[in-house]
Amino acid sequence: MTTTSEDQSTVLAANQRFYDALEARDMAAMSAVWEQTDDVICVHPGWTILRGWVNVAGSWDRILNGPGHNQFILTNTSVRVEGDTAWVVLDENLMTDGHAGTIACTNVFRRDGDDWRMVVHHGSPVMSG
Amino acid sequence: MTTTSEDQSTVLAANQRFYDALEARDMAAMSAVWEQTDDVICVHPGWTILRGWVNVAGSWDRILNGPGHNQFILTNTSVRVEGDTAWVVLDENLMTDGHAGTIACTNVFRRDGDDWRMVVHHGSPVMSG
Repeated sequence: MTTTSEDQSTVLAANQRFYDALEARDMAAMSAVWEQTDDVICVHPGWTILRGWVNVAGSWDRILNGPGHNQFILTNTSVRVEGDTAWVVLDENLMTDGHAGTIACTNVFRRDGDDWRMVVHHGSPVMSG
Repeated sequence: MTTTSEDQSTVLAANQRFYDALEARDMAAMSAVWEQTDDVICVHPGWTILRGWVNVAGSWDRILNGPGHNQFILTNTSVRVEGDTAWVVLDENLMTDGHAGTIACTNVFRRDGDDWRMVVHHGSPVMSG
């Protein structure tokens, strides 16, 4: 299997749906982005490692129903597709209720038929200075 | 290609060589761990995204030749192999000159013949409390 720019576009579309779900606070859309297995992993900025869809979903449920609104400008995005696995690395430039900050983010996806599902989300705060 | 526990062992061995190189401050060993291409990515805890082996190598050169000694106890390790890609997620429990702290870490590897090379290293500080 070769890596095509069509694959890259499909991965980036899945990645965009993740941020759309986050901005829209849409748990159904967020759930659809993820591979719903025990093997998924999520590291929110500053958090410990969460493993398994039950735990990951619980964290998104709290975040999407919590205070504040998350708006992002995504910059510095790269995508690499290798067979049925792909990873997107980017900066989330976050504007949350007047606070600005940058989160460096690695998102890993697995091919699922014609689409891709998130299997790892790892965000980390970029220290200014 | 199926995922075998032999693959998992080989990936974990490559992952261990990364930490051995870091503890030993051995740039040659660190270089041997990585895929030396423009496509590799490294996010040190709190840093911005570094892309490409030249930039990634430069950062390790500074770290390995900098002050302090890095010793780790690795815990909470998982490995997932999918075809020719694998990722290891773990906690680096860091003891650096008397300071303790935890770094949540995602390491992505690509198969290279009988071995595996690191293509992404993303470490993020876990906030205590």
